[in-house]
Amino acid sequence: MKRPELSQAYVIAPDVNQNWLTRRVCGKDQSGVLKEINVVEERPLTIFLNSQEIVTSMTIGDHPKYLAVGFLSNQGMLRSDDELTGIDYDKELETVIVRTARKTNYEEKLSKKIRTSGCAVGTVFGDMMEGMNSLTLPSTRLKTSWLYALSHKINQTPSLYLEAGAIHGTVLCEKDTPLVYMEDVGRHNAVDKIAGWMRLNSVEASNKILYTTGRLTSEMVIKTASMGIPALTSRSGFTAWGVDIARQVGLTLIGRMRGQRFICLAGEARLLWDADLDRIQCEPQKTRRKGSQK
Amino acid sequence: MKRPELSQAYVIAPDVNQNWLTRRVCGKDQSGVLKEINVVEERPLTIFLNSQEIVTSMTIGDHPKYLAVGFLSNQGMLRSDDELTGIDYDKELETVIVRTARKTNYEEKLSKKIRTSGCAVGTVFGDMMEGMNSLTLPSTRLKTSWLYALSHKINQTPSLYLEAGAIHGTVLCEKDTPLVYMEDVGRHNAVDKIAGWMRLNSVEASNKILYTTGRLTSEMVIKTASMGIPALTSRSGFTAWGVDIARQVGLTLIGRMRGQRFICLAGEARLLWDADLDRIQCEPQKTRRKGSQK
Repeated sequence: MKRPELSQAYVIAPDVNQNWLTRRVCGKDQSGVLKEINVVEERPLTIFLNSQEIVTSMTIGDHPKYLAVGFLSNQGMLRSDDELTGIDYDKELETVIVRTARKTNYEEKLSKKIRTSGCAVGTVFGDMMEGMNSLTLPSTRLKTSWLYALSHKINQTPSLYLEAGAIHGTVLCEKDTPLVYMEDVGRHNAVDKIAGWMRLNSVEASNKILYTTGRLTSEMVIKTASMGIPALTSRSGFTAWGVDIARQVGLTLIGRMRGQRFICLAGEARLLWDADLDRIQCEPQKTRRKGSQK
Repeated sequence: MKRPELSQAYVIAPDVNQNWLTRRVCGKDQSGVLKEINVVEERPLTIFLNSQEIVTSMTIGDHPKYLAVGFLSNQGMLRSDDELTGIDYDKELETVIVRTARKTNYEEKLSKKIRTSGCAVGTVFGDMMEGMNSLTLPSTRLKTSWLYALSHKINQTPSLYLEAGAIHGTVLCEKDTPLVYMEDVGRHNAVDKIAGWMRLNSVEASNKILYTTGRLTSEMVIKTASMGIPALTSRSGFTAWGVDIARQVGLTLIGRMRGQRFICLAGEARLLWDADLDRIQCEPQKTRRKGSQK
């Protein structure tokens, strides 16, 4: 029987052969010697909702439609029942226009609020938190053996991070299988791309696990919860507010996951400690991710 | 002669005794054992410029006035000749109001632009880039021995990062001396706090070096350049656009600085390779910062 390649399990994995996502840049190293390294690209992308310009985001540039739809969904600007009538991406103008059948409530809200508050950022955040109060995530069980398997597979997957560094990754997983692995210069963009992919492919969220290389801040927890995903795990650490919100909405929150170790600060009652810790290996130096906080 | 403590050199260093910046949170570890860890706080802070609400930022909460003034300066909303007539911080309402003698041009600009574009984020970014076109930083020389000395001192300094993780640090330095060490959940906040401190204390920028634990993205480079600081160094990696902007404005940009190693991708002609690499130690495991990208 042929042993399947790691990347065969993925629906979408990082495409390290897309040359336009990185660039060779020349400089001098600590000895004054000329050296060329791979560096990730960073481009502006302006997202419109119908006729309304919403935000200009810095992104590596892949999956712009997923990014736009995911961003608008996660911000509560697109409702789950909004019918999308078109998504137009213009590579040259660096814009994406998401069109809906119904005039979105966000546009009305914005035109009212901008008169008093000027910029939507504060408003948007308030709206996101509002959504949290009525939310309770399904209490899906989670095996610790899955967490170790996911960690191992994801760390071994060829990625722009391993090619060029300075980039965050987020992976949508089911049980012990990573499904969609997105990367971006902003960790929120990587999550938004996953949200967009899920929405446009009507993917069930209640049995999923989200893995991120970024920290578990309030915004990451809010995004995961509004995607309906009941578990969020990271190599990085927590903020106290991230923990508070996770406990409020019933999100299982696992951080500082490296090698054998992790800590679960919310939803620990749903964990099944089925992994045999003696069989969990330390991370090999080669694939150890440096981009992780304590 | 008494040997001075490391922290004595600092004008402002992380105050690890401020209990309200971290919280003890209880969870379960990989063996299902109850464990309590330190986690950083994260709080909203809404910044006003005169009567105009500008942004709600997530911050650990220290130095709110520096954060507000630095943010507004770095965004180009406060001009360098704007006279500040008051900075009012309300801890309970989590707001800072920065007042100017003159009606700032930003408010006029905003009221014009919001009619067409809704949110100021895109506009602001455009304005920031605009400022870059006319900017050339002073071509201050930089010794590699300073870089190693700074790295060593900063890594040894007690910090919230070493206490609780999940936090970025930015340090304003002169020659081989770190002066002001700010930390925040958002790396941009840490830089903005330094910008605010510099502005309110009329600190000369042309002989300074900025050290950050975060990545060298376009936004980090733009902020450093608009502060007038000619050198930016980081443990983390680069984005291509960050490198482009640094070259355009004449900023010396050094990344991936760990142990003996670094790479300089802009302004390398200003570096003086005076350090004896054989005398540079590897980083001790204890203070090695995990929060750094390749």
